[in-house]
Amino acid sequence: MTTSRRITLATRPTEQVALTDFGSDEVELPALQKGEILVDVEYLSIDPTIRGWMAYDTYLPKIGIGEVIRSAGAGRVVESRNKAFPVGSRVFGMPGWQTRAVMSGGVPIPEGVSYEQALSVFGVTGLTAYVGLKDIGKPQPGETVVVSGAAGGVGSIAGQIAKIMGARVVGVAGSPEKCAWVVDELGFDDCIDYRAEDVAAGLRRTCPEGVDVYFDNVGGETLNAVLGQIKDHARIILCGAISQYNTGAPAPGPANLINAIPRRALLKGFIILDHMDRAGEAAAEMGRWLAEGKLQSRTHVLEGLDSAPLALQELFTGANVGKSLVRV
Amino acid sequence: MTTSRRITLATRPTEQVALTDFGSDEVELPALQKGEILVDVEYLSIDPTIRGWMAYDTYLPKIGIGEVIRSAGAGRVVESRNKAFPVGSRVFGMPGWQTRAVMSGGVPIPEGVSYEQALSVFGVTGLTAYVGLKDIGKPQPGETVVVSGAAGGVGSIAGQIAKIMGARVVGVAGSPEKCAWVVDELGFDDCIDYRAEDVAAGLRRTCPEGVDVYFDNVGGETLNAVLGQIKDHARIILCGAISQYNTGAPAPGPANLINAIPRRALLKGFIILDHMDRAGEAAAEMGRWLAEGKLQSRTHVLEGLDSAPLALQELFTGANVGKSLVRV
Repeated sequence: MTTSRRITLATRPTEQVALTDFGSDEVELPALQKGEILVDVEYLSIDPTIRGWMAYDTYLPKIGIGEVIRSAGAGRVVESRNKAFPVGSRVFGMPGWQTRAVMSGGVPIPEGVSYEQALSVFGVTGLTAYVGLKDIGKPQPGETVVVSGAAGGVGSIAGQIAKIMGARVVGVAGSPEKCAWVVDELGFDDCIDYRAEDVAAGLRRTCPEGVDVYFDNVGGETLNAVLGQIKDHARIILCGAISQYNTGAPAPGPANLINAIPRRALLKGFIILDHMDRAGEAAAEMGRWLAEGKLQSRTHVLEGLDSAPLALQELFTGANVGKSLVRV
Repeated sequence: MTTSRRITLATRPTEQVALTDFGSDEVELPALQKGEILVDVEYLSIDPTIRGWMAYDTYLPKIGIGEVIRSAGAGRVVESRNKAFPVGSRVFGMPGWQTRAVMSGGVPIPEGVSYEQALSVFGVTGLTAYVGLKDIGKPQPGETVVVSGAAGGVGSIAGQIAKIMGARVVGVAGSPEKCAWVVDELGFDDCIDYRAEDVAAGLRRTCPEGVDVYFDNVGGETLNAVLGQIKDHARIILCGAISQYNTGAPAPGPANLINAIPRRALLKGFIILDHMDRAGEAAAEMGRWLAEGKLQSRTHVLEGLDSAPLALQELFTGANVGKSLVRV
């Protein structure tokens, strides 16, 4: 008999995620059906979207009370009724916050790729940055790209890809250390510390000619400030709105959205689950950039399944630098 | 010696346009340079964008104090140093609010097209509706299209084009008479009277499955209400924001913009001056629809140059049904 220890949803958060929003239990797993695999979960991907799934229906139905927290993650196949995933192979998928998971499949992790890489640059995090820039932002050489959440999982990769595409890149992040990291280590051209400087003023300082492309991970006032300083034909990648996920009542929207008319701007929301068919292309291109030293991937790893609620909370307090993971 | 009587900008409006924002004078016109034409202005096109030009730099520089009010219009060539525009021919262009204008050219008005048609369905008004739907909205047969400012110049044509493209069309307008006109005469499927019914409630009533395409002429709370009820992959045509042009301070933006992420929505602003190369295609297609009785064009005509300020003011109080014009 196989059991799994799980972190479950106890109460729906209305504002900041609290550790008391979570429960835990141990359950027996059912026998595998044809096509299924049993996975020993080794890493979890801690993503802001989990906060949305806990609270309300979004692009996926909300998590039920008492159900395991839905989450991307990776691990090793320990039992298999699916020839594509033999025992001993490693897979990436949606196991949830638990020690073992019955999955109907996943994405094989190739030899030479670590779990940490599989869940960051080669996972949905890297794919999100890649698709957002390639399909929506389309920065041209010499254009100015602004990336918020610049020191986070998606933002840190997005800014580097924009640099590789030939753009001038300005980050927005929440501490001097984060700004120093994205400029000194990742090669961003400049960075605005939004806790130390008004973002609109920071944009005037760092982007005096305006913004061509904005990779938005935070929404709220930062989105509004950028919309006030866009150039003609600007492209706004609506990827996330982490500043808004913990507010009980909806905050005012961006008054400067009206500026999208005279500036002929495009804004486009996207959900990475629609673009999983691009994973192969993205992995090939980003793998080459990694090998050439053009792209760096940094992870922020907490230890143990029980640290997952804290890791999620940290996304909203800004404690992480790089992609947040939990080693189960 | 040729003179022109002009309506000029006296003071910049900060809120509702006042008749005292305008002055008038009579000026001598200079002798024609090579390539120029002298036009007896017969009709003016009264457009919401003029309110923006009076107040601040937008996609064009603001009008100077004491300068003629910038405006589209049409008239007859009475003197010509340009072979493309012989004396007696009719042209459409940007003469401004005056009785005579020296122009460097314009668009010839074909035989059989009236001034009123040239300035509505065949002018920038019709082209705006056409390009917004064809290039951004792209409604598919059976999809639900919402059009605000539905009884206005652009909106009334946009809704009819969406019907021709096979969509279900719901208007938003400001009186029972306007709603009756767009439903009974223009063939819209339904209409929300925003002065009588909360728009969000009206959308739940008329679009229970949500909105695929929104042609936005008004911005503000109507835009917010639609963003709260969009379907996956919705397209929002950011054409105008007439509800916001007369506010001294910027109103809050649409809080529901955040919904563009899970719904994978596109929002796109555009300025019709970028798309004048489409005028021939649009005129051919809309001319055929007119001839086939599929498209109706209605104008709201005020008499005399001096009525132009009132005509502009009426756009914001909602007095017009159809495209607003002044017969000079």
